[in-house]
Amino acid sequence: MSNLLTGIGASAGIAIAKAFRLENPDLTVEKKQAEDIKAELENFNQALKTSKQELEVIKEKTREQMGDEHAEIFSAHLLVLSDPELVDTIRNKVREENVTASFALKEVSDQFIAMFEAMDNEYMKERAADIRDVSKRVLAHILGTPIVSLAEIDEEVVIVAEDLTPSDTAQLNKQFVKGFVTDIGGRTSHSAIMARSLEIPSVVGTKTITDEGKNGITVIVDGLEGKVILDPSEEEIQEYKQKQADYEEQKREWAKLVNEKTITKDGQHVELAANIGTPDDLEGVKNNGAEGIGLYRTEFLYMGRNELPTEDEQYDAYKKVLEQMDNKPVVIRTLDIGGDKELPYLDLPKELNPFLGFRAIRLCLERDDIFRTQLRALLRASSYGNLKIMFPMIATLDEFRQAKQMLEEEKQVLIDKGITVSDSIEIGIMVEIPSTAVMAAQFAKEVDFFSIGTNDLIQYTMAADRMNEQVSYLYQPYNPAILRLVKMVIEASHKEGKWTGMCGEMAGDSVAIPLLLGLGLDEFSMSATSVLPARSQLAAITKEEAEAAALEAIEMNTAEEVKNFVEKKFL
Amino acid sequence: MSNLLTGIGASAGIAIAKAFRLENPDLTVEKKQAEDIKAELENFNQALKTSKQELEVIKEKTREQMGDEHAEIFSAHLLVLSDPELVDTIRNKVREENVTASFALKEVSDQFIAMFEAMDNEYMKERAADIRDVSKRVLAHILGTPIVSLAEIDEEVVIVAEDLTPSDTAQLNKQFVKGFVTDIGGRTSHSAIMARSLEIPSVVGTKTITDEGKNGITVIVDGLEGKVILDPSEEEIQEYKQKQADYEEQKREWAKLVNEKTITKDGQHVELAANIGTPDDLEGVKNNGAEGIGLYRTEFLYMGRNELPTEDEQYDAYKKVLEQMDNKPVVIRTLDIGGDKELPYLDLPKELNPFLGFRAIRLCLERDDIFRTQLRALLRASSYGNLKIMFPMIATLDEFRQAKQMLEEEKQVLIDKGITVSDSIEIGIMVEIPSTAVMAAQFAKEVDFFSIGTNDLIQYTMAADRMNEQVSYLYQPYNPAILRLVKMVIEASHKEGKWTGMCGEMAGDSVAIPLLLGLGLDEFSMSATSVLPARSQLAAITKEEAEAAALEAIEMNTAEEVKNFVEKKFL
Repeated sequence: MSNLLTGIGASAGIAIAKAFRLENPDLTVEKKQAEDIKAELENFNQALKTSKQELEVIKEKTREQMGDEHAEIFSAHLLVLSDPELVDTIRNKVREENVTASFALKEVSDQFIAMFEAMDNEYMKERAADIRDVSKRVLAHILGTPIVSLAEIDEEVVIVAEDLTPSDTAQLNKQFVKGFVTDIGGRTSHSAIMARSLEIPSVVGTKTITDEGKNGITVIVDGLEGKVILDPSEEEIQEYKQKQADYEEQKREWAKLVNEKTITKDGQHVELAANIGTPDDLEGVKNNGAEGIGLYRTEFLYMGRNELPTEDEQYDAYKKVLEQMDNKPVVIRTLDIGGDKELPYLDLPKELNPFLGFRAIRLCLERDDIFRTQLRALLRASSYGNLKIMFPMIATLDEFRQAKQMLEEEKQVLIDKGITVSDSIEIGIMVEIPSTAVMAAQFAKEVDFFSIGTNDLIQYTMAADRMNEQVSYLYQPYNPAILRLVKMVIEASHKEGKWTGMCGEMAGDSVAIPLLLGLGLDEFSMSATSVLPARSQLAAITKEEAEAAALEAIEMNTAEEVKNFVEKKFL
Repeated sequence: MSNLLTGIGASAGIAIAKAFRLENPDLTVEKKQAEDIKAELENFNQALKTSKQELEVIKEKTREQMGDEHAEIFSAHLLVLSDPELVDTIRNKVREENVTASFALKEVSDQFIAMFEAMDNEYMKERAADIRDVSKRVLAHILGTPIVSLAEIDEEVVIVAEDLTPSDTAQLNKQFVKGFVTDIGGRTSHSAIMARSLEIPSVVGTKTITDEGKNGITVIVDGLEGKVILDPSEEEIQEYKQKQADYEEQKREWAKLVNEKTITKDGQHVELAANIGTPDDLEGVKNNGAEGIGLYRTEFLYMGRNELPTEDEQYDAYKKVLEQMDNKPVVIRTLDIGGDKELPYLDLPKELNPFLGFRAIRLCLERDDIFRTQLRALLRASSYGNLKIMFPMIATLDEFRQAKQMLEEEKQVLIDKGITVSDSIEIGIMVEIPSTAVMAAQFAKEVDFFSIGTNDLIQYTMAADRMNEQVSYLYQPYNPAILRLVKMVIEASHKEGKWTGMCGEMAGDSVAIPLLLGLGLDEFSMSATSVLPARSQLAAITKEEAEAAALEAIEMNTAEEVKNFVEKKFL
């Protein structure tokens, strides 16, 4: 009899294949005196070398398939293996305490992991995860118990695992890995994000798949609805093959829209743009027919390195994006670091509530050396395309005025040096702090555009950390309070002849889209893979009916009411 | 020549007296082998005993002068000295390592302090501060270097110190201690709060007073303007004596208002209420003529103990407050724990952003055993006065409905048992989360009243942790965004025939008061000592001019503009 599990649909699509159970190898180590210290050290050095070679290969493969940003994690892993603090401590332990390399490695890495975890800081906790991932690899080589390599899978499978590590996902081969299902994780966990990038159907957070998903049984993964069927009946297989075919058909329909503009059923144009993290993401932008870049997050230029990027490095990246987008609008957001995104080399103070702390524009206005370098790079690149500059985390008009003043000053410096700077750069702000939404009428007189950052706006408006599972029920994009703030912002901008975009998750959400259209949103910026479904959805709605629906929704009492109303009316 | 320092006026008034420099005694300890272990242990036991006796005396004195809440800290100190983990570890160290008691105490307490500080959790850090304070006391006795006792001061002085510990402030004798000045601290630091309770003029955060404030020189403390004059000229002394006399005269004028209602110049009544933490605060409420209790924080019932308070303990406290307030309105807020206020015995998970976390109503709805016990205690006490119940941290209508439902259920249970419950209890909410302010129109249909909690509302609206110095410039009560939200809330309540109060710091702020009157606020709840100055201020303003000013202020661009405008017009 078939067996149904439910979880969170992390990546859309249907997969039907045999289960491949990803098990952790037995890496138990006992304390043992070394018989031959030289041999132990030799074994350790060899394992280290092999691990490094593997990581270089994985890193290169990841870079090719998924771009720099995703490959970065393996640079971090390689750094760990080159860290003398770790490696020499292991060698010394073997020598001084006369123990096996495996025992020394386990002891030392456990100590480092415990130390980093105790630091209680998200960045350091990630370092602990890196050391755990990497030391497992080296230990497996010392013990001669190779880790199952997902890269070696050569038949169609659905991977069943407790969770997938970055090393695991990097090795997923789309040709054979048709889907995956995990016990833990949510829509924004690492493995879920990777699954969407790779377009592999997946369901995460099923809690019990590793108990029930035995090797070799047939599994249906329904990433559209977050369902997993184990040992399906022949009927169920046929039903899902049909569903799979329908979805493929729908994707082909969507693909036809790739070169189209986004037009509502009653002929109104809105702009569908994509969010990117690095120039490598541009291919996805083009393949999915985005009409511009609504958010280029510049943080990745600053991450995974030991010092600030130079002005020229930044200039090259910005220029590349502007040129490749061929005069389509490109909104580049200035550095949004701090909070959960730390840069170790800036040595920022530890904060009790980092989401309410010293981050983004707050940091840039104080560290204006960093900020002005980025502004100069942006200004120099501006003549290569249609650049719009956006400041993050603006809470007061003073902050906007200060940031704009610095931009004007740097512009003048460049012009005085004879460098060409575009004279039509729009200067806007993220609206992601409630005060700024409430003050939109005042801001609209001074900015060129708004882009609503819903991820933060929702978390501050509801006073609920979106990463904290105990209050995740309060992360409510459809709460009428959020819709009311969005309305205030859009109306304020239109009154001054300015435009409003949105670059949070909400902009690509099928329940939110009719409401946002109705509230008058001018630009929707989302992950590239959401652009075509959104275009298709918008083509089926009239702006008139969306407006009526939005007016009804903002008078409702709860997020639940709004969701049910939209689903009934539009989905 | 006189010397002017500026700082933060922490407690109003003028003091002129000789400086008394509070110095930390030399408690340096070196590692030394014990000559006589028995004698060392005897010395330690004696020091422990003396310290405990001192602490009992200080605790009792604090309780008499300042009430239970302030005395609590010394219960914590006494607990530390009774903790076998600490005390026996010290004794064992003396025995096993043959070291002096002073060295063992220093080593062990430093270890405990380091451990608690590393835990990186505000509650645990406070424990570290307790151990530091207490172990210093014991060490001083072991070494025979008694700590300077502020209780022994017998001439008029101004105390000059880096900062004052709770033990220090508890020993301040108002008869002789005319004022104090510290290097560090802000308006909400422990010593500042104590200074206001004791009505001792003080200036904190001068940075350099301990460098310049030598023992015996004359010092003028101007707590009204945050100024300190060292070695003043005769002219300056005369000038400040006049200022002091004027302030005393003003206080006498205020005192005449103690039994008056609060009436604006054009005859409009508003209600001035007080915030309290425990029934002991009622004396201050009466002495300052508050017309009710606008916020009774029930957290203190749950703090400084090892288990939850029983229903009867709570009932006794609520009944006492209701009875003593003699049918004047008493707004009791249900448990607001979590965030920075932790209860160790609840064993709450550590959070990355506690201010955006699992606290107050969020916790109460899940731990409804705790919540229902409090609700029953409140309902049983309700027949003894004019009770209004208020739920904190409400972000959605769902939460309010759930909380109200639980209240109704417990009410029915009590009625079924034949227990008398008032049938006119108003049920309201704190408005301290932006979503709730924005949704005020919807909430106003279901609640009986609103009370705006500005401390949190400002921090969430500006997305800035009010405890974090690096973003403290964003804690802007006068930001037009805050005024706009306040306006939305008040208008929504009036439209449904409900009332709105305010129980944050802002309600007692002389710049905010004219604006809040103009926006239509019905009830202002503040610390008791602010009630009379506020009543005096309101008597000099017409509601009409306040309304015009408020309408102008909400159209302004920045907090600075608003402040300058109000100061020019009203102060």
